[in-house]
Amino acid sequence: MIEKLCIIGIGLIGGSLARALRYNGYVREVIGYGRSVGSLQQAVELGVIDRAEVSLPDAVRAADMIVLAVPVGNMAEILETLGPVLPDAAVVTDVGSVKGSVITSARAALGSRFTHFVPGHPLAGTEQSGVAASLPDLFTRRRVVLTPEPDTDADAQARVRAMWEAAGAEVATLTAADHDRLLAVSSHLPHMLAYCLVDMVVRHDEYRAIIENSAAGFSDTTRIAASDPVMWRDICLANRDALVVALRQYHDDLGAIVKAVEKGDGKWLCDTFTRAKHARAKLNKKI
Amino acid sequence: MIEKLCIIGIGLIGGSLARALRYNGYVREVIGYGRSVGSLQQAVELGVIDRAEVSLPDAVRAADMIVLAVPVGNMAEILETLGPVLPDAAVVTDVGSVKGSVITSARAALGSRFTHFVPGHPLAGTEQSGVAASLPDLFTRRRVVLTPEPDTDADAQARVRAMWEAAGAEVATLTAADHDRLLAVSSHLPHMLAYCLVDMVVRHDEYRAIIENSAAGFSDTTRIAASDPVMWRDICLANRDALVVALRQYHDDLGAIVKAVEKGDGKWLCDTFTRAKHARAKLNKKI
Repeated sequence: MIEKLCIIGIGLIGGSLARALRYNGYVREVIGYGRSVGSLQQAVELGVIDRAEVSLPDAVRAADMIVLAVPVGNMAEILETLGPVLPDAAVVTDVGSVKGSVITSARAALGSRFTHFVPGHPLAGTEQSGVAASLPDLFTRRRVVLTPEPDTDADAQARVRAMWEAAGAEVATLTAADHDRLLAVSSHLPHMLAYCLVDMVVRHDEYRAIIENSAAGFSDTTRIAASDPVMWRDICLANRDALVVALRQYHDDLGAIVKAVEKGDGKWLCDTFTRAKHARAKLNKKI
Repeated sequence: MIEKLCIIGIGLIGGSLARALRYNGYVREVIGYGRSVGSLQQAVELGVIDRAEVSLPDAVRAADMIVLAVPVGNMAEILETLGPVLPDAAVVTDVGSVKGSVITSARAALGSRFTHFVPGHPLAGTEQSGVAASLPDLFTRRRVVLTPEPDTDADAQARVRAMWEAAGAEVATLTAADHDRLLAVSSHLPHMLAYCLVDMVVRHDEYRAIIENSAAGFSDTTRIAASDPVMWRDICLANRDALVVALRQYHDDLGAIVKAVEKGDGKWLCDTFTRAKHARAKLNKKI
């Protein structure tokens, strides 16, 4: 049970976590902090938070759990502001899509209190942003990855794990390096592919005709290209090394497909598509 | 109204068309022809067709509408068999994803009766195959593209258009070359991207961990990689020239993204993602 939860950044993820914990009776009071007064007001009106604060020191005062739900690119600045005002009893966690860079910032900003920072990443979300899009069941049966460091406090880890489980999630633990390398392939790369496809079509002479003659395949493949551009720019910059490895591999693999189509190598294409089909069909069963 | 409809190939598309026309009372009798006795029997049991035939001449006898719903790679052979036994009153259409190659085969196989062949392509489907996956509303408000040639009979066109409208679809007309060039971008390219991504993950050392740490972005982006490999091999071969143009463009564009991530060029990435986001969000409203 959390007495006083402070969520910094009341968007899709922060708002959904607040809704889930309130819905499940796991939190007594939720304080929201953010830069946009309009969003904070909307969060209060929607009943997502109890109270909004526009000063970070006021927001975190007496909190026992602080969740940083801002984009990866804003984590360093928030952590620096948080460092000097962090309450003694508080555990801090975040929801950033990249863990290595957030850990580096947290270690620098939090000093000896870094032990009570538990890096986390819920593998959930939609292409939408903002508190109005938040959902109480966004995390139900979704994985949340925690990436504790060797010096992360065990009790702090347990409290963050319990919070996510109360929100309906399944919690797993990885090293930050493993997380960033795996997510580069499973999430960051697909976002690049979707952005690239839509941008190619936008700049195409026949843009309108291509869209008019598209079907579900195009719209599913590109759904995540409606994601927030600033957030994704920051993910690219924060996970650059692992993302470049994944992008280069894909670029080479696609080059092989281009060559096979050029040569009309039906056997190679059919073998490749068959391998993919079997794996993807298995994934459907898992989902 | 169709008196006797013969559907050649009772899979997802052929089966869904039969269901839609029966449901809307637009057809008196539906005859199914196919190679798999099991599929034909299943189609009869599911009430998708009235009667199955295992001989093509028997199946098309006295039909006023014949729909070729076989994969693109099987069209030439079916058309050659159909040519000598085509009833005088029959109109023929197809559902192939590539139009140029089907038209070439039809012109060769049907001779003077080519005028009554109306090339078509419903922009609908799922990643599934087979009559069991067929749906009576698969074409509801979906586009069907007809690609008549200069010598295609006007009455034959009108009859095929009326059939698709009776199945709930919206019919548009393009030249075959325009269709194949546009669909290479809007459909064939996304399938290559999805197959390539899943195949890269399948062959990855960390396959299992990548899948375990994937979320909705990965599964949506790759849904169409569960599509039939033989069908897609044949589409690649039949639309090779247009697909190679689209693939090369995408390969170059992705190369630019790789470079921007490598250089950490946040402005370029944000501009590209923003262009894509706005276009993709507009598409959501359209859908």
